[in-house]
Amino acid sequence: VLVALAVPEADAEVQADALVEADLRGFPSHGIQRLSVLAARIRNGVTAPVTRCTMRWLTDAAVAVDGGRGLGPVVAFTALAALQKRAKSTGVAIGLMTDCSHLGMLAPYVERVAGDGQICLALTTSEALVHPFGGHRALIGTNPLAVGIPSRPTPFVLDMATGKVSMGRILEHRHRGAPIPPGWAVDSAGRVTTDPVAVVAISPFGGAKGFGLGLAFELLVAALTGSELGARIVGTLDTTEICNKGDVFMCLDPAVLGVDMWDNRFTAYLDEIRGGGQARGDVRIPGERSRELRARRLVEGIPLASAVWDDARRLDADPVSP
Amino acid sequence: VLVALAVPEADAEVQADALVEADLRGFPSHGIQRLSVLAARIRNGVTAPVTRCTMRWLTDAAVAVDGGRGLGPVVAFTALAALQKRAKSTGVAIGLMTDCSHLGMLAPYVERVAGDGQICLALTTSEALVHPFGGHRALIGTNPLAVGIPSRPTPFVLDMATGKVSMGRILEHRHRGAPIPPGWAVDSAGRVTTDPVAVVAISPFGGAKGFGLGLAFELLVAALTGSELGARIVGTLDTTEICNKGDVFMCLDPAVLGVDMWDNRFTAYLDEIRGGGQARGDVRIPGERSRELRARRLVEGIPLASAVWDDARRLDADPVSP
Repeated sequence: VLVALAVPEADAEVQADALVEADLRGFPSHGIQRLSVLAARIRNGVTAPVTRCTMRWLTDAAVAVDGGRGLGPVVAFTALAALQKRAKSTGVAIGLMTDCSHLGMLAPYVERVAGDGQICLALTTSEALVHPFGGHRALIGTNPLAVGIPSRPTPFVLDMATGKVSMGRILEHRHRGAPIPPGWAVDSAGRVTTDPVAVVAISPFGGAKGFGLGLAFELLVAALTGSELGARIVGTLDTTEICNKGDVFMCLDPAVLGVDMWDNRFTAYLDEIRGGGQARGDVRIPGERSRELRARRLVEGIPLASAVWDDARRLDADPVSP
Repeated sequence: VLVALAVPEADAEVQADALVEADLRGFPSHGIQRLSVLAARIRNGVTAPVTRCTMRWLTDAAVAVDGGRGLGPVVAFTALAALQKRAKSTGVAIGLMTDCSHLGMLAPYVERVAGDGQICLALTTSEALVHPFGGHRALIGTNPLAVGIPSRPTPFVLDMATGKVSMGRILEHRHRGAPIPPGWAVDSAGRVTTDPVAVVAISPFGGAKGFGLGLAFELLVAALTGSELGARIVGTLDTTEICNKGDVFMCLDPAVLGVDMWDNRFTAYLDEIRGGGQARGDVRIPGERSRELRARRLVEGIPLASAVWDDARRLDADPVSP
C-alpha cells in the first residue's frame, strides 16, 4: 500500500514494522488499523511519502530533527541512530523532533536502544484527549512516556500513556455496544460516564498525580521542541492537517557514565520484584506481558478485527483512490 | 543546632532552608521534623557536618557528584549551579549524585532553576516503602519525580512521589488512632488495609502504571549513578547507616535549544487548563496550592505538631547529646 503511494521500499518497511509491532504486542490502537488514516494523509498531501529529514545539531548533545512532513518511524530511527552514536562520546544526547507523522507505539524504539546497552527515554504529545483532574474538557494529550533500560536477559521496557485508557479501547466498547467501567472517562457535563457514546474526554490515570504527569509532559515536549500545546495539536488522528506535535528522545550511555549495566544486580532486583507477590505470576514487570504476547503471535499470527482486515484488503486492492 | 554540630554556617542555612521550605509548602514529612534524624546522623558519623563534594565531569554534558557523606541540599545546590552554567553551552547537562544525605522536597530545586529560565528534572530514590502492583512486599522507593518549567508569571512545578501517599501520612494516622482510606497500603498478607498499624508497604499510585513508573525511576537512578536498588537502600530514615541512594538532576536550556519560553503560549495554555472545570477553582495546576500555602505561611507562620516543636526545642537546648 505504502509503496503504491510512492513511499520508498525501505521506508515503507520501517513504517509497516512500526504498525505490525503494535499489533504483535497487543496494542491494536497503534497497529495496522492506522494504515488507512496514514494512506489518506499521504494522498491528501499532509504526510510526505518521501521522508527527507533535516538534522541540525544545536550543541554537541542536542539535535533538532525536522521531519519534513515525513513518516514518524523513519524520522525516529534516523534520529535514534544519530543519538546513540553521539551518546557514546557525550554520555547524554537529546533529539527534538517536529514535523513528522505519528511514531506509533514507543516501546520498540526504547527497547532497541536498551538492547544496544544504552538507556532511552521517549516522550511524545498527541491530540488533546484527556481532561485535567477536576475538569471535564479534553485539553491534554495521552502523552506517553517510554523508558528502556539495559538488563539481562532482556531490557526493561516501560511504555505508558498518561490517560486511564486509550481512545481506541473506548471506541471498541462503543462498537460492541458495551458499557465502559466507571473512572475511564467523563461526559460533556463532566460526570463520570459508563456510556462510551457520551464520552468527551478520557480521565487521567492515577487522579491528580497522573494529571500532573501528563501536563508536565505536554509542557516539556513543547518547551523542548517548540511544538504545539493542548487542543491546538492536530495531525495524528485526522487525514487533513499537517502534524504539529513534538517528540523527544534521549539516549544515555551508562558505560560512558561509569555504570556497569551487565553486572547481576539489575537482573537480581527484577527477579526480586517478580517474586514479590503472594503467588507466582502475581507481579508482572512492565513490558513482559507484551514480550510474551509478541513471541506467541510471531508463531501463531495476529488476530485482527474483521473491520481492520477488510479495510487493509480494500486498501491493498486500491491504495491510491480516496 | 546544625552549627553546634560543626556544620559551617552557610551550609547550615542551606539545610535549614530545605527543611523549612517543605513545612512552608505543606509537606511536614520533609520538614523540620527530620532535623532530629539528621542531627543524630551527624553525631553518629554517618553524615559529615562539613560537606566536601567532588565533581568529576565525565563528558561535557555529564557530571558525577560525590557528596562525600555531606548534606544533600548543599551538594544539590552545588551540582545545580554547575549544571545550569554548563547547560548554557551544551543545552542539556546531567548531574549524577551519590553519597549525600536526603535532599528533602524536590520542588524548591526545580523551581529555582525554572525561575532562571531553564527546564529542570529531578529524580531521587529512597528506602523501599512501596510494593509492586500485584505484590505486597516493600521493594521500591517512593521515588519522586520533579519537573520545573519556566513560565510566566511563575514556573510550572510538579513534584510527585510514585507512592499513593507518604509514610509520614500513614504514621500521622497511626498517631491519631485513625483508620487510613482503603487503597493506601497493604498488610503483611498483601491485603488492602485500613489499619495504619498493620501497614507493611505503601501502594503505588495509579495501579500498574504508577508501579511501572516508580520501578522505572528506581532502575534509572541506579543505572545512571550506580546507586543501590530496592531494599538495599538505607540512610535517609535511619540514624546509623551511610546513605547509598542516588539523585539525578538534569538542566535543559530552552534558549540554547531554540525555544522561546517567554512568549504567551505557555501562560495561555495553563490558563486554559485552569478554566477547564465546571466551576472556578475545580482545576488546580500542580504546585500552585503549595505556592499559595507558602505565601500565607510566610506571613502567618507555620503550624507545627507539638511533638515536632518539642523535639526541636530539646535539640536546640542540647544539640550534641544523643
